[in-house]
Amino acid sequence: MRADARKNRDHLLAVAGAAITEQGVDASLRDIARRADVGLATLLRHFPTREALLDALLRTSFDELTARAAELEASGPPEDALVSWLRDCVAVAREYRGVTELMAAAIEDPESALHASCVAMRAAGARLLTRAQAAGAARTDIDGADLFALVAALAWLGDQSAFAPRAEHLFGVVANAVLTG
Amino acid sequence: MRADARKNRDHLLAVAGAAITEQGVDASLRDIARRADVGLATLLRHFPTREALLDALLRTSFDELTARAAELEASGPPEDALVSWLRDCVAVAREYRGVTELMAAAIEDPESALHASCVAMRAAGARLLTRAQAAGAARTDIDGADLFALVAALAWLGDQSAFAPRAEHLFGVVANAVLTG
Repeated sequence: MRADARKNRDHLLAVAGAAITEQGVDASLRDIARRADVGLATLLRHFPTREALLDALLRTSFDELTARAAELEASGPPEDALVSWLRDCVAVAREYRGVTELMAAAIEDPESALHASCVAMRAAGARLLTRAQAAGAARTDIDGADLFALVAALAWLGDQSAFAPRAEHLFGVVANAVLTG
Repeated sequence: MRADARKNRDHLLAVAGAAITEQGVDASLRDIARRADVGLATLLRHFPTREALLDALLRTSFDELTARAAELEASGPPEDALVSWLRDCVAVAREYRGVTELMAAAIEDPESALHASCVAMRAAGARLLTRAQAAGAARTDIDGADLFALVAALAWLGDQSAFAPRAEHLFGVVANAVLTG
């Protein structure tokens, strides 16, 4: 990418990030383009879909999560590794209000720009879960898909203002349910 | 209410129920009015807000839930009563796609037409929980608000097509987490 194209893209991402922080993932793309002083067509040339825009915004967080899972796999008690990683996942899924629903849809839609990230996260979680199960530290009747669903549900809880004050407590309740010991 | 007013209201409810089943709780009110062959003003005279419409649609289910809680309180082992009621709650919260978010918002908004129903359900759940806790059958670090949040999260999971196939299994995992024994 040429330097000026990169600069334009970064500017669009910054504006989109601010709009989505304010309004959630349903923020109007037309409004984002207007705020960034470009046409809608220009925005769509950089990010053809809402999911592509979200993926770009969350890319760094997603990559960090995957790296962190690999790091945790190599060290520490399996149950601590799993819970610590689940906590990080919930935090990322909460970066933008409403992203949980998009991730829930993306995991089964190979056409979604968020699909690859979600699949990678599910796989990383599954590896940490398998390790904890092998150590007898996690219940064996759940799998990576269940774990992804639980993370999504906990992130959703944190997004609802009525439930947000209890989200951390309920994370503990659910994490406890995943761990047997 | 006069017989013809009641008939008009019932017709609007039937049309709204069908539209919301198809499109979720965000279904256009204008579209519902059009399908019912009335003006938007007429629809709004019967149901001034989306929440009022949902409350009317769900009123029978809500009343049944409250009655069922009272019935369960008087009979059966406390842990079975609690889990059975939680299951019924999740089913009601899933009657219309998206209603969980509205209920989450309504529980803390006294102006919402859904507020009273949600508060009544939370109170009924809290009574069943307290009874189970007193019998040593449920963990004591959660309260009625936590329970309401968990029901909402489980209903939300069932609403996401990627997670729906695992919703029943995850209900069991979470119910287990609520019960100590």
